[in-house]
Amino acid sequence: MTRQIYMDYNATAPMHPRVIEAVASSLGQVGNPSSVHRFGRLARRAIEAARENVAGAVGAKPAEILFTSGGSEANNLALKGAGRARILASAVEHDSVLAAASAVERIPVDRDGIVDLTALDRMLNTDPTPALLSVMLANNETGAIQPIAAVVRVARAHGGLVHCDAVQGLGRMAVDLPALDVDFASLSAHKLGGPMGAGALYVRDGIVLQAQIAGGGQERSQRAGTPNLPGIVGFGVVARQSRDDLQAMERIRELRDRLETGLKRLQPSVRIFAEGVARLPNTSCFAVAGLEAEMQVIALDLAGIAVSAGSACSSGRVQSSHVLRAMGVDPTLAGSAIRVSLGWQSEERDIDEFLTAWGSLLVRRAKSLQTETAA
Amino acid sequence: MTRQIYMDYNATAPMHPRVIEAVASSLGQVGNPSSVHRFGRLARRAIEAARENVAGAVGAKPAEILFTSGGSEANNLALKGAGRARILASAVEHDSVLAAASAVERIPVDRDGIVDLTALDRMLNTDPTPALLSVMLANNETGAIQPIAAVVRVARAHGGLVHCDAVQGLGRMAVDLPALDVDFASLSAHKLGGPMGAGALYVRDGIVLQAQIAGGGQERSQRAGTPNLPGIVGFGVVARQSRDDLQAMERIRELRDRLETGLKRLQPSVRIFAEGVARLPNTSCFAVAGLEAEMQVIALDLAGIAVSAGSACSSGRVQSSHVLRAMGVDPTLAGSAIRVSLGWQSEERDIDEFLTAWGSLLVRRAKSLQTETAA
Repeated sequence: MTRQIYMDYNATAPMHPRVIEAVASSLGQVGNPSSVHRFGRLARRAIEAARENVAGAVGAKPAEILFTSGGSEANNLALKGAGRARILASAVEHDSVLAAASAVERIPVDRDGIVDLTALDRMLNTDPTPALLSVMLANNETGAIQPIAAVVRVARAHGGLVHCDAVQGLGRMAVDLPALDVDFASLSAHKLGGPMGAGALYVRDGIVLQAQIAGGGQERSQRAGTPNLPGIVGFGVVARQSRDDLQAMERIRELRDRLETGLKRLQPSVRIFAEGVARLPNTSCFAVAGLEAEMQVIALDLAGIAVSAGSACSSGRVQSSHVLRAMGVDPTLAGSAIRVSLGWQSEERDIDEFLTAWGSLLVRRAKSLQTETAA
Repeated sequence: MTRQIYMDYNATAPMHPRVIEAVASSLGQVGNPSSVHRFGRLARRAIEAARENVAGAVGAKPAEILFTSGGSEANNLALKGAGRARILASAVEHDSVLAAASAVERIPVDRDGIVDLTALDRMLNTDPTPALLSVMLANNETGAIQPIAAVVRVARAHGGLVHCDAVQGLGRMAVDLPALDVDFASLSAHKLGGPMGAGALYVRDGIVLQAQIAGGGQERSQRAGTPNLPGIVGFGVVARQSRDDLQAMERIRELRDRLETGLKRLQPSVRIFAEGVARLPNTSCFAVAGLEAEMQVIALDLAGIAVSAGSACSSGRVQSSHVLRAMGVDPTLAGSAIRVSLGWQSEERDIDEFLTAWGSLLVRRAKSLQTETAA
């Protein structure tokens, strides 16, 4: 079998060995964290230790961290539970933000996908209804980092609450939620090498949230249901090491830059999205006119290389990206965009093998264009 | 350390070794089930294999099984997502049913906790609004089994939909959802030896459900979010073996009967709740007047024996049971009720050691009554 190269960390990341070990050893532990007896107390202790680690990773207090089944649940919980009648979200948010409420107003973004603060201010001026704003820390498709502190300043001037989907940020950039001054933030374990099925919503001290899964005293009565103990234990472990991950990100950034230098060498007309703004160090989203995304994903897959076209959330279908559309990218070019996202297991030879495979797609395309011209 | 005896399976069950093995080995598998590439396809295959096993365990089609983070989410999803303005639930339902909607009307139960069909019919007659009924398969506190087929007949006569919380039933009694003729049913992995963080909602073919966690194509667009792959893999394994568990239940029933015979020998006045009706074979809920529940739970815990007072869902607090209240149990007696729930690791000596410890609580109480009388 060909060596398999995984370059889709923004969809999900391979679990860290330390996380696997912690999760595996917690599987043998019985006890519902809500139970009064010894088994219950030990389970509760494991959950609370994880809560401290997750809180510590984002500068929060443990009581401000509410465990969920993942980022999508956290996003839905914030948008529905904040109790605001008006909700505004950037046009490049994840679907679990844009679809969480029935009438989410979309804040426009510029050609790099950065939220338009002037437009936001205008939208807030037209209607005095106290709003909830949702702007992500970093985009899952392009990696573009939003100016959250500036968004919060505009929001505050209009009595707005702010939710920040920080799912793609954690472990890839410094995340200090009190410094960002947001009211809510969504986190997910599996994007940085923790287990699937574990996420969290940061709810700033003093903010009222209405439970969406009701019916139990768990998570301060804000999220009912027996918590996913092994998943949360793994989340704690990966959160604790997320600051160390940040140092490793310099290596990842070099790999990403090596990739983009290679892309330009092979095809000077390549467009790299959000290249001009601050981006996650692990993400590159790019397109070459006429080199269709689905064909690339499938051909690379055959070569043993896993990348994606857009986000991974639409059950196997390659859809045109609402993110690139919002950035004003020509629909045909958007249909050629693929995303490479790197992580802790990525290495130089992955980049080089990717470039070789991608280069041969370019050659194949050039040949087929020649044939067409000749015919 | 004293030998630890776990008798709280209705709160959560120890994971089966086969499940631990399957979950542990899936931890090393990377891939988002929504991704197009090979890693994604393999993850999707694992999810779909689990779906077939869960469906098979309850007589459903795979497409009727929708994975959730657990039973509480499944209950909330059914009650909110069914889109019925009027909701009726038996007064002994789990809190995640009773609290899921703002105005759940409670269907009364008899002294054994069995739903009053005449009262239900009357409630449905008074108001023509098409209703959703929620009646559990078996009660988490007493083990009492509800006459679901009869409930469905009454419901159908009034155009009602029926949801059945089958969380405590799976693996402990035969569960054939098409035979029960319900529209929705909630399932959970961790009550029968699967992992926490994995549950399912059965949605009968043709029934429309509105997603509560929105924003992705997962689970036929009815439940967004990257699924908890290791948890779902474990759910599949435990579901597949749940029919074998049923045979093992005869052994469990004998242990439970040994327990109850012992209780009566030690204290003939003991009241065993729902003793006169069909019950889960693993559950015994009982009370002796004046032998306070919290004291029992704590004293037994010190002796290394884990039991509970009521359900385990209220973050460590021992609360008076709404189930026993609805059954008309005197509040003082209800405050003395404890629940012993058994499972695959339970053995005869657990029962005998429980009886020894419980017997000494009775002796201690008798002595303290004597002292009080003498004083």
